[in-house]
Amino acid sequence: MTAETAAHDTRSRLLDTALRLFSDHGMEGTSMQMLADELGVTKAALYYHFKSKDEIAEAVVAPALQEMEQILDRARTKRGRGAQMEHALCGFVDLIVRQRTLISLFNSDPGIRRLVNRTLQAPRDENLNTKMRTVFAGAGPSLADAITVHVMVAGLAMAGGAPEFAAIDGDTLRQHLLDTGRRLLGRPRRQRPDKRLPEPV
Amino acid sequence: MTAETAAHDTRSRLLDTALRLFSDHGMEGTSMQMLADELGVTKAALYYHFKSKDEIAEAVVAPALQEMEQILDRARTKRGRGAQMEHALCGFVDLIVRQRTLISLFNSDPGIRRLVNRTLQAPRDENLNTKMRTVFAGAGPSLADAITVHVMVAGLAMAGGAPEFAAIDGDTLRQHLLDTGRRLLGRPRRQRPDKRLPEPV
Repeated sequence: MTAETAAHDTRSRLLDTALRLFSDHGMEGTSMQMLADELGVTKAALYYHFKSKDEIAEAVVAPALQEMEQILDRARTKRGRGAQMEHALCGFVDLIVRQRTLISLFNSDPGIRRLVNRTLQAPRDENLNTKMRTVFAGAGPSLADAITVHVMVAGLAMAGGAPEFAAIDGDTLRQHLLDTGRRLLGRPRRQRPDKRLPEPV
Repeated sequence: MTAETAAHDTRSRLLDTALRLFSDHGMEGTSMQMLADELGVTKAALYYHFKSKDEIAEAVVAPALQEMEQILDRARTKRGRGAQMEHALCGFVDLIVRQRTLISLFNSDPGIRRLVNRTLQAPRDENLNTKMRTVFAGAGPSLADAITVHVMVAGLAMAGGAPEFAAIDGDTLRQHLLDTGRRLLGRPRRQRPDKRLPEPV
């Protein structure tokens, strides 16, 4: 193992552990000491990697936000509004389902939400919120479309991270969230294999 | 003014002020002392009405929750699933729009959310969450319908309390939220006057 992969492993184990502790105790209720104990390292070792708990939480949420950004950028390369919306919706739902722990934390933890919102609403040319709305509702959307997109994005995230759906397997949850998102966007819903009529002979 | 109306006025002024302070500083950031100062009374006078900040917050959110309960009960007296859903949706959206400050607080404040969830998920025969799902998706709903209702309820509440829509007038917001809700429930959307085709002569 090279020094570089070792450092990468340490960092990734640290972020996994932080996510788990934040989920169990909230960001507020998790101390650097708890995290150090859980990892079996000293607090000093922890501070070698990160200056503060906020910095750790930022590193925990950053990959999902970067991935969403990439999904939206990729969606824009598709030809036609329909294909763009479909790509963005599939990517968004897939991200929600894969990152259920993180989404659930975002839904319930004010510290995490504050950090994520800082990125979503960052004052730059086109922040993640604006990009999301533009891909789903077009540039300069009507108020009706902006509200629909807001209901969809917030609703899908809330449902995807809801404790009552935590036991549902990923594929089933993904399909239902997709169907709901498509209905909101006025997109045709895909036929599911078990609901398709038999082909005429 | 009778002693009874005076007590009622004091209580209602106290709850209005508490909601405003919670909105400005969060429930966590609001102390009994701040509330007493804002009301121009002593802390002792405050404790005469309420034993704790939690009890005040409960009193702040209780009327909206009771109203939602009544809307759902009334919806059930309607004949036909369509009429029941329509009554419940109109009542829910109207409540969101009238109580935007409270909804926005619920969306962003963990203390308020904890108190509201305690009522929504209360372990009783049929808590508010279950009642809401039953009215919107029928008894023993499919997973698909349960998820759609979750997306709708959470999404409408999040959008209704979102800062970016705070400046929109009540009627406009109500109409857009209703349209979005109806689309999710598969209900026909009402034609709006400005979009109606002229009657044939």
